[in-house]
Amino acid sequence: MTQTENKPATQETPFVPIEKIVALCKRRGFVYPNSEIYGGVSGIYDFGPLGVELRNNIRRFWWWSMVQLHDNVVGIEGAIITHPRVWEASGHVENFVDRLVDCKNCKRRFRIDHLPPENVISNRCPVCGGELTEPRTFNLLMETYLGVVEGERMKTYLRGEACQNIYLDYDNVLKSSRMQIPFGICQIGKAFRNEVTPGNLLFRQREFEQWDLQFFVHPSEMQQWFDYWKEKRFEWYRGIINHKDRLHFREHGPDELAHYAKQAFDIEYQTILGWQEWEGIHWRQDWDLSRHSEYSGQDLSYTDPITKEKYIPWIVETSGGVDRTFLNLLIDAYEEEPDPSGKEARTVLRLHPTLAPVKVAVLPLQKNKEELLTTARSIHNKLKRLMVSQYDDVANIGRRYRRQDEIGTPYCVTVDFQTLDDGTVTVRERDHMTQVRVAIDELPAYLLERVTWH
Amino acid sequence: MTQTENKPATQETPFVPIEKIVALCKRRGFVYPNSEIYGGVSGIYDFGPLGVELRNNIRRFWWWSMVQLHDNVVGIEGAIITHPRVWEASGHVENFVDRLVDCKNCKRRFRIDHLPPENVISNRCPVCGGELTEPRTFNLLMETYLGVVEGERMKTYLRGEACQNIYLDYDNVLKSSRMQIPFGICQIGKAFRNEVTPGNLLFRQREFEQWDLQFFVHPSEMQQWFDYWKEKRFEWYRGIINHKDRLHFREHGPDELAHYAKQAFDIEYQTILGWQEWEGIHWRQDWDLSRHSEYSGQDLSYTDPITKEKYIPWIVETSGGVDRTFLNLLIDAYEEEPDPSGKEARTVLRLHPTLAPVKVAVLPLQKNKEELLTTARSIHNKLKRLMVSQYDDVANIGRRYRRQDEIGTPYCVTVDFQTLDDGTVTVRERDHMTQVRVAIDELPAYLLERVTWH
Repeated sequence: MTQTENKPATQETPFVPIEKIVALCKRRGFVYPNSEIYGGVSGIYDFGPLGVELRNNIRRFWWWSMVQLHDNVVGIEGAIITHPRVWEASGHVENFVDRLVDCKNCKRRFRIDHLPPENVISNRCPVCGGELTEPRTFNLLMETYLGVVEGERMKTYLRGEACQNIYLDYDNVLKSSRMQIPFGICQIGKAFRNEVTPGNLLFRQREFEQWDLQFFVHPSEMQQWFDYWKEKRFEWYRGIINHKDRLHFREHGPDELAHYAKQAFDIEYQTILGWQEWEGIHWRQDWDLSRHSEYSGQDLSYTDPITKEKYIPWIVETSGGVDRTFLNLLIDAYEEEPDPSGKEARTVLRLHPTLAPVKVAVLPLQKNKEELLTTARSIHNKLKRLMVSQYDDVANIGRRYRRQDEIGTPYCVTVDFQTLDDGTVTVRERDHMTQVRVAIDELPAYLLERVTWH
Repeated sequence: MTQTENKPATQETPFVPIEKIVALCKRRGFVYPNSEIYGGVSGIYDFGPLGVELRNNIRRFWWWSMVQLHDNVVGIEGAIITHPRVWEASGHVENFVDRLVDCKNCKRRFRIDHLPPENVISNRCPVCGGELTEPRTFNLLMETYLGVVEGERMKTYLRGEACQNIYLDYDNVLKSSRMQIPFGICQIGKAFRNEVTPGNLLFRQREFEQWDLQFFVHPSEMQQWFDYWKEKRFEWYRGIINHKDRLHFREHGPDELAHYAKQAFDIEYQTILGWQEWEGIHWRQDWDLSRHSEYSGQDLSYTDPITKEKYIPWIVETSGGVDRTFLNLLIDAYEEEPDPSGKEARTVLRLHPTLAPVKVAVLPLQKNKEELLTTARSIHNKLKRLMVSQYDDVANIGRRYRRQDEIGTPYCVTVDFQTLDDGTVTVRERDHMTQVRVAIDELPAYLLERVTWH
């Protein structure tokens, strides 16, 4: 993966207020509230023109890193709706719950795990001091029904986590792909949770997109592969952010670990809101395949082709998602840079060039010279076949640079009077605003080298 | 987009029995029944390692053709769950229905629109001749519930068609993207329908993935843009199939047209099952934005920045999907070619090279010569950064070629003894099995030219 040259030291930059990100997302078309003309739906979002390009790039880069580069990893794409027994086997029907209390006085509702400990002990409302009700339990799975005739309808669930499809398809993958243990299966896909208290802007969504690797190993190699993927995933995130010091591991304490887990780590990223989970590295042992063997009656054990040993494979899981990555990258990239000339600050999104939604903007220096426009359009029409390119001839050149800085476009190509003389253009780089002259013929290779992973 | 050279004339090949496609999909990991270990769920499928690569390529090529190449088209990515009022405005709550009858004698159930006309008239079961019940109406929208507390739960629906998000976000896109009419919004995304009689293998799915363009125009330019996109979409499909004579337009008759539609065309593809819709080109006039204006109370009219004319834009819709394209491409590409030597037939998937799930296989000629293996692995490790590459050293070279032919891999690179002498490899092309020698250094450019769109 390429890097912009001499990325500025950003360790010193202050944390970005979330409101700045919200405003940018709406103003420039990264994120919209879903069904906004009908008043919106809490916890559900749509993504605008720049948002979808950024998401596509994030997904493609994850897929390239995890599936395409690893000979021992393949992908699948499973459905959102599955058989309801899946969620009994997974434990979600029983355990995927929030516990809620209401204040008898002010009628506010709280998740118990969000209450300050003293209020849990005193059973008092943290807002008005009123008495709290007994806790009630609510399942977060979203239900739906298959079949249209009453009495024949089957209640099932939108998947509460995407990874279940990997366990369901594990045996089919083994039989159809020539993979042998150790090997992994990756998937990117949506999941749904009926969050009691959805958060603002992608923080706690009801509909969101996860990515998972489930890596199947012999029990004796579990620790080795756990360590391998733990480091690999950390380096992946480290490679796409600017604030390297805002990424760390948090090891789960003994009270947090599932009964089958020897270890678990969260990769966390630090924002103005504190440290938050970005991805989990989980020691799942034989839990998932054993449960599905038991509930389905199918034998999901593996027979080693050489030793003939038969066993249920153990699993290393790495689980993160598109939405968290999308949001953290925007937060990580956003900067307001004082203008040396004392005018308004420069807002710049220092997104990794390979992930930026628009790769290049082609700008004729002035609008009143037809030859500049024709040349610029011709360059744009060639470049757009190779990368996302924008042509812009509206407003003065400084303002057009700012427009691109704000959405993270790593390069601006300016067609000026010298272009008409010698066939070179100015290439302006986003982070340092340095400018170099490049021949039009060499432009595609110059840019591709810098904006694609390879 | 590149083409394989001299593609063989396939007009003469017989129609492929669907069972052949089903068998290939399962055997080689294109498609699995969802939740198969639990007995499956009717009308719902998962996609295996080769299936997901093919789907990714199909999606990327559509996105590149429709969004990246068109300066007047942008993309969005909307949520599956929306506000329930959306489906009242769209007419789905009222009209998205199947009408069913049951046989009082044999208890079979039929969709009225699937019954032979004589049975509708006689009200008799087409199987046993028994009397049929009065028709009952069932809505195909799949419901779900937001909110966890009884009495505060909001019933809503999984989107029955993905395009509604485009109308919902139209005003946000206008405000945030600097687009002006005429312009279009594209989206790829899942939709859900509670089909009464789901079909086999992707023919009538309950969960499926659509792609839509909604192109917004001034009423006076409607016909011109309708014709433009109609031709454009036809050429797109024509460019990715072999059997050009199995693609045609079917114009909707007056009895099929929606009341607001002046015209509608289906792009249809011919298989052993007859002509079937692949994509629809629809004249939606101002129907969608008017309805959403009315139901939401938001003014969705457009004011021309120059003439100041205010109007509700008219819409040209082109609507198809990933699943139909996936299935039709497999059917179109599948061929069993008699072996000239009289041995077993060669099964070959003549997928367009840019869409094939695996682009290249790197094969050492023999396994017993370490230098061949090392060289082949080194070539594979370089190529896989640029395209999906497989390394295979198991079985004789003829068998390995067949394995790749069957999944549509357009090129096989064979490392043989001459390679060790002069640094060239054999590149074997899938369709004609022609072989050329290419220098290892030139291999990436040679292959990229042939397997990527540009």
